[in-house]
Amino acid sequence: MSEEPLSPITAAVIGASGFAGGEICRVLLEHPYVETILPVSRGSESFAERHRHLAASGVEFVEAGEAERCDVVFFCTPSGEAARGAQTWLDRGARVVDLSADFRFGDAATYRAAYGNDHPGPDLLAEAVTGIPELYRDTIARARLVANPGCYVTAAVLALLPAVESDVVDLAEVVRIHAINGTSGADATPQRATMHVRVVGSVLPYNLDGHRHAPELEERLTSITRQETRVDLAVAHGDFARGIYLQASVALRAPMTRDQLLQLYLARYGRAGDGEPFVFVDARRRDGGLNEKVYDVYPQMRDVVGSNLCRVGLDVDRRRAVARIVAVIDNLTKGAAGSAVQNMNVMFGFPEMAGLSRCGLG
Amino acid sequence: MSEEPLSPITAAVIGASGFAGGEICRVLLEHPYVETILPVSRGSESFAERHRHLAASGVEFVEAGEAERCDVVFFCTPSGEAARGAQTWLDRGARVVDLSADFRFGDAATYRAAYGNDHPGPDLLAEAVTGIPELYRDTIARARLVANPGCYVTAAVLALLPAVESDVVDLAEVVRIHAINGTSGADATPQRATMHVRVVGSVLPYNLDGHRHAPELEERLTSITRQETRVDLAVAHGDFARGIYLQASVALRAPMTRDQLLQLYLARYGRAGDGEPFVFVDARRRDGGLNEKVYDVYPQMRDVVGSNLCRVGLDVDRRRAVARIVAVIDNLTKGAAGSAVQNMNVMFGFPEMAGLSRCGLG
Amino acid sequence: MSEEPLSPITAAVIGASGFAGGEICRVLLEHPYVETILPVSRGSESFAERHRHLAASGVEFVEAGEAERCDVVFFCTPSGEAARGAQTWLDRGARVVDLSADFRFGDAATYRAAYGNDHPGPDLLAEAVTGIPELYRDTIARARLVANPGCYVTAAVLALLPAVESDVVDLAEVVRIHAINGTSGADATPQRATMHVRVVGSVLPYNLDGHRHAPELEERLTSITRQETRVDLAVAHGDFARGIYLQASVALRAPMTRDQLLQLYLARYGRAGDGEPFVFVDARRRDGGLNEKVYDVYPQMRDVVGSNLCRVGLDVDRRRAVARIVAVIDNLTKGAAGSAVQNMNVMFGFPEMAGLSRCGLG
Amino acid sequence: MSEEPLSPITAAVIGASGFAGGEICRVLLEHPYVETILPVSRGSESFAERHRHLAASGVEFVEAGEAERCDVVFFCTPSGEAARGAQTWLDRGARVVDLSADFRFGDAATYRAAYGNDHPGPDLLAEAVTGIPELYRDTIARARLVANPGCYVTAAVLALLPAVESDVVDLAEVVRIHAINGTSGADATPQRATMHVRVVGSVLPYNLDGHRHAPELEERLTSITRQETRVDLAVAHGDFARGIYLQASVALRAPMTRDQLLQLYLARYGRAGDGEPFVFVDARRRDGGLNEKVYDVYPQMRDVVGSNLCRVGLDVDRRRAVARIVAVIDNLTKGAAGSAVQNMNVMFGFPEMAGLSRCGLG
Repeated sequence: MSEEPLSPITAAVIGASGFAGGEICRVLLEHPYVETILPVSRGSESFAERHRHLAASGVEFVEAGEAERCDVVFFCTPSGEAARGAQTWLDRGARVVDLSADFRFGDAATYRAAYGNDHPGPDLLAEAVTGIPELYRDTIARARLVANPGCYVTAAVLALLPAVESDVVDLAEVVRIHAINGTSGADATPQRATMHVRVVGSVLPYNLDGHRHAPELEERLTSITRQETRVDLAVAHGDFARGIYLQASVALRAPMTRDQLLQLYLARYGRAGDGEPFVFVDARRRDGGLNEKVYDVYPQMRDVVGSNLCRVGLDVDRRRAVARIVAVIDNLTKGAAGSAVQNMNVMFGFPEMAGLSRCGLG
Repeated sequence: MSEEPLSPITAAVIGASGFAGGEICRVLLEHPYVETILPVSRGSESFAERHRHLAASGVEFVEAGEAERCDVVFFCTPSGEAARGAQTWLDRGARVVDLSADFRFGDAATYRAAYGNDHPGPDLLAEAVTGIPELYRDTIARARLVANPGCYVTAAVLALLPAVESDVVDLAEVVRIHAINGTSGADATPQRATMHVRVVGSVLPYNLDGHRHAPELEERLTSITRQETRVDLAVAHGDFARGIYLQASVALRAPMTRDQLLQLYLARYGRAGDGEPFVFVDARRRDGGLNEKVYDVYPQMRDVVGSNLCRVGLDVDRRRAVARIVAVIDNLTKGAAGSAVQNMNVMFGFPEMAGLSRCGLG
Repeated sequence: MSEEPLSPITAAVIGASGFAGGEICRVLLEHPYVETILPVSRGSESFAERHRHLAASGVEFVEAGEAERCDVVFFCTPSGEAARGAQTWLDRGARVVDLSADFRFGDAATYRAAYGNDHPGPDLLAEAVTGIPELYRDTIARARLVANPGCYVTAAVLALLPAVESDVVDLAEVVRIHAINGTSGADATPQRATMHVRVVGSVLPYNLDGHRHAPELEERLTSITRQETRVDLAVAHGDFARGIYLQASVALRAPMTRDQLLQLYLARYGRAGDGEPFVFVDARRRDGGLNEKVYDVYPQMRDVVGSNLCRVGLDVDRRRAVARIVAVIDNLTKGAAGSAVQNMNVMFGFPEMAGLSRCGLG
Repeated sequence: MSEEPLSPITAAVIGASGFAGGEICRVLLEHPYVETILPVSRGSESFAERHRHLAASGVEFVEAGEAERCDVVFFCTPSGEAARGAQTWLDRGARVVDLSADFRFGDAATYRAAYGNDHPGPDLLAEAVTGIPELYRDTIARARLVANPGCYVTAAVLALLPAVESDVVDLAEVVRIHAINGTSGADATPQRATMHVRVVGSVLPYNLDGHRHAPELEERLTSITRQETRVDLAVAHGDFARGIYLQASVALRAPMTRDQLLQLYLARYGRAGDGEPFVFVDARRRDGGLNEKVYDVYPQMRDVVGSNLCRVGLDVDRRRAVARIVAVIDNLTKGAAGSAVQNMNVMFGFPEMAGLSRCGLG
C-alpha cells in the first residue's frame, strides 16, 4: 500500500475519443477520489457527441496542454505514442497507466516479433510493471508506470491462474483458448464488416493467423509457470457490444474431479467479499445425468457486463483428462478501463474497489 | 446412384413437433419429388400452432397409423425410439433416416460409454450407414438405414476433412474445437436458462464436462485417419436462433502457408457449382499487415443460415504451426434436417440438391 | 392473366449491388421460369463479394450492355434513373418493374411535394401501375410498367385494407402507424450510426419529421377509401437485419369485437391456401383475463423473415373504440424484391407463387 | 426537502425475487445512505442464485420478520399485497414505496375499471402520492406512501410533459404512443413465447386490446392538462433485456418548428447538470435534406440502459402538424426501481441523485 493520503487527484486521459478512453471517463465519474477528469482528443467532435451515453455527465474534452498538470495519465493511444510520451509525464511527477501495447513485453525483441516493428521507446521497458493486480499487486503499488494488459490476456490469465500456479496442468500440451469479444473491441472506423447488418445474428472471426495478444499471454504464462507455455488463441466478435466470453482448455496431469479443481480456484480467489475483489468463482453444483443438457452452472457474460468483475467457472472432462474453464469479463471494464483504474487505485493506495464497486446489470 | 425412377414419394416424420422435425417439413415442402408429408406428433397442439412459420403451408399432423404407408421415414425422436422402431419400418419397405443418436456408433459398447445406458436395439447397428454424403455417398446410395450425424459432428467433419485426409495434421496433438450453437439446438422445454432475458447479449456454455457429440466425432475422425484421434470439444449457445459457428485448431506436421492449405480444401471440395454441392470454401485473399485487424476473409454464419450449405475458411498461425479452421452451418438444416433430406436424395437417386438449393438469406 | 405461354425468360437487374437487387437475384435463383439473371452493378466488387450469401450461386455481374436483351428489367436504382431509363427498355419490348420511388406517385406535383425536386421523367407516370397485387392484380397483368411500392406502404396497406375497404374505420381521425425496420433497409454506406456497436440492443429512430413513404401511403389509402386519409407514420430501425414490424391504430366508427374484425380480414384475405397467396391472417384465439399478459396471439416477425408472406393480426381496444393491427413482412422480400417478382409473375401470367413459395425460417 | 438528517437507513424490499426487486437491491448497493438492505422472498432460491449478477454482492434474502424494522419498504408484489399490507408498515413508522399498481389510481372506481376487481384496500388511496418527482417533488417530500408509476407511464409522461403543460398540443386528438419494452418487463415465468428462440430477431406484441398502463396514463395526463386526454397505447417486447423505447405523436394546435418545440423542452427540463437531474433533452442539430435518411439526431435507448436517465428527443412533421417525440429509459431503473429510489431520496431529503448517478454503459 502506498503511504500517500487519500486526497483527491486529477486524471488525464490521452486518446479519450475511443471506447477505452470513454470507459475510463465513465468509471472515473464514479470514483470518490478523482476530482478532475481531463480527457484529451484530437478529433473535432465534442465529448457529448463522441460518447453519447456520457452526454449528461458534463465532462468535456480539453486541449492537450490543459492535461499536463495531473496526478495520473492514462494512455489510450495507438502503438508508439505512450512509448514516446511516457517519460515526459513521469518527469512531471505523474503516474502512467498505458492501455496500449507499448510496455506489455519484457524486452524490445519480443515486441518486435509480435508487432513487426522496432520498439519506439525501449528505455522504459524495464521499469514498466504488468497491470494484473491479482498477480502483481505489490509491485504495482510501487510502480510509476503500469502496462495494462490486453483484454484477452486479462481474461485468460484469470481463467488459468489457479490451475497453472498449482501443478495440475500438463504444459507440454498447448493451452487452447477461444474467445468471443463484443464489437466495442473492434476497429472503431465504420466499415462494412462491422456494420450492424453484417454482425447481427452472426459471429465474426478475425486474425486467425495469430492474434497479437497470444505472444503477450505466452510471455505472461511462461513467467507464471516458469516453463515455456504455448497458447492457441482463436478470436471472434459476437453479436453484442460489450463483453468477452473466453473458454480455455488445458490438459490435466492427473485425473481430478470438478469439485477438486473448483476448490483450487476458490482457494486462490476466495469467495465473494473475501478474497480477490474482482474475481468471482461460479461454483454452482452440477446436477443432471450424462444425457442431459446442463445449463446454468457456468458463468454467464451478461452477469458481468457493466462491472469490473471477472467470473470464472469450469468443468472437467474426465474421459479426456481435460479441464474446461470459462471466464467472462466486460471487455471495456475489466478488459481495459476498469483494470486501468484498479491499477491506479493500487498505485495511489486507494481502496482497490474505489469507483469500481458496481455490479453487472444482469 | 440408385436405379429407381424419379417418381414422387411420401415421407413420414416421427417426432415432428420439435425443431428438427419442423425443419424437415419445411425443407420437404420445397422438394420437387416429395408429394406427401406425414408429420406425426404426440402433442396436442396443431401443426400451425407448433410451427408458426409453417402455418400458411397447409401441412397438418397425422395420426401415427396414417404415416405407416410411406417411402421414407425420418426419426426425430428421443433416444431409443428409432432403435426400437426402425425394423418395423424397414419391414414395410420404407427407408429410414434417423436423426437421433441411436445408430451413430459402430457398436453398442461405444454407445454405452457415450450415453450411459445399454443400446436399446443393437441388431441394426451393423447395417446403419453414417449420413455424411461428403464421405459416404456411395454407401448411402445403397443403404436402407442412415444415421444422421450430430450437428457438431457434421460441421467438424467438414471443417477437418481435407486436412485430416491428407497428411498435414499432427494427430498426436488433440484436435481442439469450439462451437457456438443457436438456441434452436437447445432443450425445447421452457426453462429459465433459455429465456430470452437470460441469453440475449450473452453466451450460454453447457456440458463442459464433455458433449456427447465428442465420442461420435472421435469415432468418425479415427475412422477417416486410421489412427486414434482425440477431440477437445467445448460448446455453448449464442444469441441467435439458428446456426453453428465452429472453430477448429489442429497442429500442422510441417510449416505451410494459408494458400497451400486452402488449395487442399479447394481440391477436396471443389469450387462453387463444381464439386461438393453443399460445401463452399471461402478463399478470399487476406490482406493487411501484422498489426491490422483483418475481418471478412473467413466465413460468416449469417451467410449460410436458411441454407444447406457449409462454408469453410481457414488461416495458418505460422509461429505455432497451427491451422485454424472455421466452419459455419445452419444447425437445423445442414446440421440436421437438410442433411437428412440430402441423405434421402442420395438414397432415392434424386438430384442431391433437390429441395435444398436455397441460398442463405444474408 | 396474360395469354403468353410459360416460356423461360431473362431478367435484368439494374442497381444489383444493393440489398434489394441482391434479394431479387436470390429470389430469381429459385424461380422456375427465369432462365437467366443479368445483374448490373457499377461497383468494382464481384457479385460473390458483394452478396456473400449468394457466393455459391454462380451468378456474376454483367456489363450494362449485356443486360439489354431481356424480358423484364428491375430497377433498384437511386431516384431518377428509372424515370430517365424506363422508356428505353419499354421500347426494347421489356417489361419494367421499378423498385425506386420514381413512379409511385400519380402525378408530378405530389412527387415534387414528397421529394423536393421536379420529377425527372413524368411522361410515363400515367402509364405506371402500382405494384400491389392484392389491390391491382388485373391492372398489373396488363401493365408494361409497374411501380413497386415502398416497404412501409406494402405492410401498411395490407394491414389496413380489409378495415378501410369496409365502412368500419373513422377516417376523420388520423391513421397512426409505427414501424420498425431491419437494418438492411438502412443506408448501405458504412457510417457510425449503423455500426453494430451502436444498434445492438437498441432502437434507431430516423426521419421523424416525416418519412417519404407517408405521402405515398396517404395517396394510396385516399384512393382506396375515396376520402382524404391522413397518416401519422413513425419509423425506426431495430436490432435485426431483415423484417418490418408495423403496428397501426385506427378509430372505429362503431363498437365491434376482435372476432368481428378478424372475420372481415379473413373474408378479404381468405385462409391459408385459399385466398390471397401471400397474406395470412393470424386468428389465434385470445384467452386470458384483463390483468394477464397475453402473448402469442398476434403475428411475429420472425415467422415471415425469408418468405414473401405478410402476416396480419389484430385486437380491439373496446374502451377507446380503437383497432390495433399488426402486420409483419420481410422488408427485402414482400417489402421489395419479393413483391417485385410477384408483380413480374402477374405480368407474365406465371403462377403468382412461382419462385416465392418458401416459408419463413421460424 | 425533508428536515431529517442524512443518517443511514435500512430498506426492506418485499417481493425481492423479481426483476424490479433485484434492481432495487442493485441500486441500493450503490447508495451512500442505505446501510442495510433486507430483501424478502417467498421462493426457495438463494439471492445469489436468483439474481446472478448480484452474486458477488453478499446480499442475502431475509425472513419477512427480519424486515419489519426498517425505515423504508419497497413493495414489488403482485396486485393487492401492498394495498393490504401498507398500513402495517406505516404504523411501524416506515415510509412505503409501492411499485405495484395498488395505489396508482385516484379512486377505487378507476382501479376497478382498469383491473376488473375491487380495490383490496381503498382506505389509503387518498393519501398515496404519485411517484413522479418531475411533477410532484414537493408532495413526495412530505409523503409517507408513494405509488411508483408504471414503466410506460413514466416514459410517456416525461416524453409529453413540456408539450402538454404548455398550450401547443391539440388534445381533442388522441395521443398515440408506441412503446417497445425489454423482456425483463415480461412475465418472469418460463413459457414458450418468451424463450430466446422465439424473441431473438423479432418483436413480440402483447395486450393490444388495451394495456393497463393506458388508463393510468390517461388519468395522469388529464390531471396535468385539466382536460380529458385520451391515449392510444400499443406495446410490444423487443429483442433486448432492458430498456423502453417510446414514441409518442401529438397533434399541434399551430405550426411550429422543431427548434421551437425543443426550446420548450429545454426550458422545462434544463440542460445537463442544471435542471431535472434525470431528464436529458437530446437537442442535436438536424441536418440533411428532404430525401436523406437522418439518423442519430434522436435519443438512443442504448445510451440510457443501466442508468436512471430518461432521454427525450423530437421532431416536427410540418405537413401534418404533428410532433413526434421519443423517450428512452431503462425499464428496470427509471421505469421501476430507479424511480422508486429517487422517490425515496426525495422522501428522506437525500440528494436526489444519491445512488443513482451512474451513466449508461453506451
